[in-house]
Amino acid sequence: MVRAGSERDLRPLFDPTSVAVVGASDDERKWGNWLAKGAIRGEGRRRVALVNRRGGAVLGRRAYASLSEVPGGVELAVLSVPAAQFEVAVDEALSAGARAIVGISAGLGESGAEGRRVEQEVVRRVRAAGAALLGPNCLGILDASTELYVTSNDFPPGPVGLISQSGNLALELGVKAEQAGLGFVRFASLGNQADLDVADLVVSFANAPDVEAIAIYCEDFRDGRRFLEAARMAADAGKPVVLLSVGASRAAAMAARSHTGALVSGSLSIEAACRAAGVERVSTPQQLVDLLAGLLLGVSPAGPRVAVLADGGGHGAVAADVAEAAGLVLPPLSADLVTRLTAATGTRGSTSNPVDLAGGGEQDVWSFHRVLEVLLGSGEVDSVLLTGYFGGYGLYGEALASAETAVAGALVEAAQASGRMLAVHAMHTVVPGGGHPPSPIARLRAGRIPVYPTVEAAAFVLARLVGRAASWPEGVPELLEAEDGPREGGYWAARRVLEDAGIVFAPSRLVNDAGQAIAAARELGYPVVLKAVAIEHKSDVGGVVLGIAGEAALERAVSDLQVRLGPQEMAVEAMLERTGGVELLVGAHRDVRFGPVTLVGLGGVHTEVLSDVAAALAPVTEEQAWGLIGSLRGAPLLLGRRGSPALDVGAAAAAVVALSKVAASRPAISEIEINPLLVRRSGAYGLDARLVLGPAVSGAAETASSGAGSGGGTPWPQASTPPSTTIVVPVT
Amino acid sequence: MVRAGSERDLRPLFDPTSVAVVGASDDERKWGNWLAKGAIRGEGRRRVALVNRRGGAVLGRRAYASLSEVPGGVELAVLSVPAAQFEVAVDEALSAGARAIVGISAGLGESGAEGRRVEQEVVRRVRAAGAALLGPNCLGILDASTELYVTSNDFPPGPVGLISQSGNLALELGVKAEQAGLGFVRFASLGNQADLDVADLVVSFANAPDVEAIAIYCEDFRDGRRFLEAARMAADAGKPVVLLSVGASRAAAMAARSHTGALVSGSLSIEAACRAAGVERVSTPQQLVDLLAGLLLGVSPAGPRVAVLADGGGHGAVAADVAEAAGLVLPPLSADLVTRLTAATGTRGSTSNPVDLAGGGEQDVWSFHRVLEVLLGSGEVDSVLLTGYFGGYGLYGEALASAETAVAGALVEAAQASGRMLAVHAMHTVVPGGGHPPSPIARLRAGRIPVYPTVEAAAFVLARLVGRAASWPEGVPELLEAEDGPREGGYWAARRVLEDAGIVFAPSRLVNDAGQAIAAARELGYPVVLKAVAIEHKSDVGGVVLGIAGEAALERAVSDLQVRLGPQEMAVEAMLERTGGVELLVGAHRDVRFGPVTLVGLGGVHTEVLSDVAAALAPVTEEQAWGLIGSLRGAPLLLGRRGSPALDVGAAAAAVVALSKVAASRPAISEIEINPLLVRRSGAYGLDARLVLGPAVSGAAETASSGAGSGGGTPWPQASTPPSTTIVVPVT
Repeated sequence: MVRAGSERDLRPLFDPTSVAVVGASDDERKWGNWLAKGAIRGEGRRRVALVNRRGGAVLGRRAYASLSEVPGGVELAVLSVPAAQFEVAVDEALSAGARAIVGISAGLGESGAEGRRVEQEVVRRVRAAGAALLGPNCLGILDASTELYVTSNDFPPGPVGLISQSGNLALELGVKAEQAGLGFVRFASLGNQADLDVADLVVSFANAPDVEAIAIYCEDFRDGRRFLEAARMAADAGKPVVLLSVGASRAAAMAARSHTGALVSGSLSIEAACRAAGVERVSTPQQLVDLLAGLLLGVSPAGPRVAVLADGGGHGAVAADVAEAAGLVLPPLSADLVTRLTAATGTRGSTSNPVDLAGGGEQDVWSFHRVLEVLLGSGEVDSVLLTGYFGGYGLYGEALASAETAVAGALVEAAQASGRMLAVHAMHTVVPGGGHPPSPIARLRAGRIPVYPTVEAAAFVLARLVGRAASWPEGVPELLEAEDGPREGGYWAARRVLEDAGIVFAPSRLVNDAGQAIAAARELGYPVVLKAVAIEHKSDVGGVVLGIAGEAALERAVSDLQVRLGPQEMAVEAMLERTGGVELLVGAHRDVRFGPVTLVGLGGVHTEVLSDVAAALAPVTEEQAWGLIGSLRGAPLLLGRRGSPALDVGAAAAAVVALSKVAASRPAISEIEINPLLVRRSGAYGLDARLVLGPAVSGAAETASSGAGSGGGTPWPQASTPPSTTIVVPVT
Repeated sequence: MVRAGSERDLRPLFDPTSVAVVGASDDERKWGNWLAKGAIRGEGRRRVALVNRRGGAVLGRRAYASLSEVPGGVELAVLSVPAAQFEVAVDEALSAGARAIVGISAGLGESGAEGRRVEQEVVRRVRAAGAALLGPNCLGILDASTELYVTSNDFPPGPVGLISQSGNLALELGVKAEQAGLGFVRFASLGNQADLDVADLVVSFANAPDVEAIAIYCEDFRDGRRFLEAARMAADAGKPVVLLSVGASRAAAMAARSHTGALVSGSLSIEAACRAAGVERVSTPQQLVDLLAGLLLGVSPAGPRVAVLADGGGHGAVAADVAEAAGLVLPPLSADLVTRLTAATGTRGSTSNPVDLAGGGEQDVWSFHRVLEVLLGSGEVDSVLLTGYFGGYGLYGEALASAETAVAGALVEAAQASGRMLAVHAMHTVVPGGGHPPSPIARLRAGRIPVYPTVEAAAFVLARLVGRAASWPEGVPELLEAEDGPREGGYWAARRVLEDAGIVFAPSRLVNDAGQAIAAARELGYPVVLKAVAIEHKSDVGGVVLGIAGEAALERAVSDLQVRLGPQEMAVEAMLERTGGVELLVGAHRDVRFGPVTLVGLGGVHTEVLSDVAAALAPVTEEQAWGLIGSLRGAPLLLGRRGSPALDVGAAAAAVVALSKVAASRPAISEIEINPLLVRRSGAYGLDARLVLGPAVSGAAETASSGAGSGGGTPWPQASTPPSTTIVVPVT
């Protein structure tokens, strides 16, 4: 049994002993009509009552004027009433004994303050009664295993559970799943999550025996870490979770907010969150369905080595390019394997990788099976990508069709016996004009072999699943005990809290004039750096002077800086030797839903220009910190490569850990960063820092603030225009 | 009339007055059967003769035992005979007056030296007779406008011309085109290109009135620059060319070679070639079809600004993320526009960007038209992406279906009137179970509005077409007059030829011992650099010593180097100040098909680690050189950004131009590069160089040699193990 936080009993929601549809209607264009018809489909399993305040008859059966009239009360009440009647309808449902309520009604929490007030009040009463509310502003639920159909549309049948915050996207997922030979056993529409939230539903789905995988479209994760705990436990229970999320773009974050009032997390935060929980994140409905088809096989490639098997050199070559672009590797095959493949093909085809039957598939469709067995058993590849014509030979005649279907069955058995992954691209996934898959395709899918109409989908899925079995989720870290403060932002506050955490900075002195500066420099030793501390993007305006070698130069620098930028606080700092070192950016921000998130990037100009950033939920372990650094495109600069030795990644990782702990224990902090952290052969040193107090960062803000980047790539949250309640002392 | 090189009259191939199928057969599994049946379909337009050496009857009509028996001779002969009979069959065809021959027969040039000999001999005779040969080893041709069907399969009808070097890929393109509502008016299978090559066919297709766009799958471009001239002239004639190419991966290049004996160009070379000719390059059949659907509209977005129009917040948010990830921009809309949109929707939807009808589309399907007109006419966006449910409302009932189809017609008119681009993602592109598109979708496609089943396809196409109308192809540069030499490779040869071309290098002296080194350093002035000249990847093994400040240190460095690496030629060079400068890699290689290609990358470690490289056909103009540098991800490092001033990009561009001219005038050079070229505030200086003589570089070699890179990204050709005939003196 999967548990996460305070668990709710959702049996009355998904398998009620009785259901009432309030707002039932004869009008075929109305929700109340669709819901009523759906509810009646389950009448063999439960009592169904229709309620319409005008009483009389609906769908040829008695309609009760009120829930209170329904004899024996009701366990699940589905409320499709105008917003103004919602509160009363909930009260009536609770009075009638409802343990679960589905709120279809729109125009509540998503529409403004008054709607939110009603929602909160209703939730208070629902919880006090020990009941649960889904929605409002939702599209209902479906559970084929309990014959419960109270939603607007049907879904193709299958083993997936679907949780969605958008109705039309859920419908598109239904269309695409059907085309892929997949379907849904359970569906819940999230709506406003006034009471039940996405985490509650994930727990319930994880515990539903007929749900084998969970698909989610979610804009607002509410208690993000609780959601992750639930998702992770689902994954632990062998039920993969695939998430279609939005918020990578400012426009999407704003759209989601106006849609359901959702507070959307930033893209980096969602990425970090998914990795922690073992959730597969996708960007489109098609990707979600494609990835699910691969996950349901239950086998993932142990490594990136793939053999491409084609009947035709063109298909083989295209698949090779696409597979390598997706991150897979096509190893050359051993001489021994080539010999065995040549025996298996018995054709003039190429038996290198890609393996090309060169038209032999048409002459002898069993050659696919012989070659696949040899490849899967070779130990030289982690997966096989079958691409091109297979599945379509049978379109030319009955005899070939039945042979091909038999071969498809043998391919399934070979794949299952090998424990390795097979993915198929078939140019004929539907019979032309017929709309249904050719029988070999259906046979493959019945054996859970994923079959895709494009080679790019097959390669995407194989590449995404590489190492999934081995790299179990890193886990959702617990926040540290909350500490007070800091009470102000800015450079000095950042240094203080980070130095207290053990991070080493270049020695620094606060100065206000040339005299103090010279005294400080004497103490620190030349060369020194002079900084205008309180200026945002100070290096843009000449607010940082490097390599000051002596008193005269320092005096000139102070005077010049004050003339140009006005009198102000300055810092004189020891100038550390940078040659041979690499600069990192190490930071954290507090995401509106997932809490503190640690970020590591290749520093200095490269963060902005090349957008080379990785993220993880804070706090991070030392191992994770190494992993973050190692995942950067520029990692070889730190880890050593030909011509340059390894730098002190251990010291850098320690700084990442320390900063992440600060972020995880100081809820007052909105953003904190060291930029740059200079990593040398020995040691890592903070050269500048900033700290922003205030509210958590949402997706729109995270994205909006990344405008200074080079476009493309991962956005990096820089100082955005803060809300007026935020104290900001920008220093970088 | 499009011309390219020596033009061939292909009227006898695509519109013959008579056709004979040699090898005609009653066996339905044989090519000779399919070809004969196809040829007979055009009998209303031309004489058709079947030839089978056994004579008798085929398909219920007389079969001639030989072409010589066919009364009146034949203009087009289609030869489907065993390889051993091919030569004789060609002779008979020429004797029978054939002006065009299609060689279906396999087992000739692609199978080995003897096959190539036969092919060459046959081509000699064909050309001497003033005829033309397509193939051999090809799948035939089809021209629906002349009712000529001599190929194995049919294709859906439409305005596209298809040239393919792979049969199964052509079939997949047919399947995918039909699903997209597209089709082909003409098809030619390239085969071995023994006589007619891809350039000849492009010229012919460009001149065919019914061909509106040209789709190509090609592995071997033969005379690459002639192909580009042809493609460019097609584009000039308003017929876009889309190329599905392979060779990005080593495996694909090897596969193509074993498939048709093709010499495959490298990915960087193809990329450069396509940009020169205005050819759109894609990686998969689906991308090819998707892009064609967009190109056939004949309108491309003037800029990246897109408005997303959705009926539902989820679809809007997903589309926003996908569009921005594809490189499009969703601008916030002006207050005035928002007011007009609110009036147009009349719903509670969001009228920011994405514009969300929030379920209003279902209530009032004309709201799509009102909103689209306002958006297209606003001047605030360059294109509109309509996403989600539109096209599917009609599945709920007749009345809605006919209204929706009328709206689709109005959308077409609105788009056409605006001159702006509309692309549509529709979750229902086929009627469930029916397999055909809903009528609104068909109406949109009839009006050339591209409709895609996934939002990622719609965004991909919009992003690819941004600025296509404005940025006309840069043109295919002519090679310079060939100069002899250099006669040896290596560092000194590279310096010599590049210095002669005007590129400035750090002053250098060749030395063999400590005494010579000290003398050289005295002349150059300290600090100096000491290099072991003849060692590959010398910085890996400590073969480069930087910053030698005086004689004692130099003596030690020479001794140390000789102890570690053995006695050898060394260079003592002036050490230029690198601080504040940026290092570029500037190089060229000679592609096996497209000739010399210039490459520019962010230099030093970044080329390898970050794979930031751009390419163009050599020679390049100064404007192109600036463009190459500006297209690097790291370009802001050179062009200036906050905190760092612009460097001397002009000097860097001049070096790029000069090196490209060396490559374009010296056919002896296989590879030449300056790495790094140090770009400073003023001036650009070569710090190291290499030169390799020998044969042109093919795709497999280009890709194989990029193994040292970080994986992912654009491969960079480094020194590969050269064939034994190549003179290599590696110096870097």
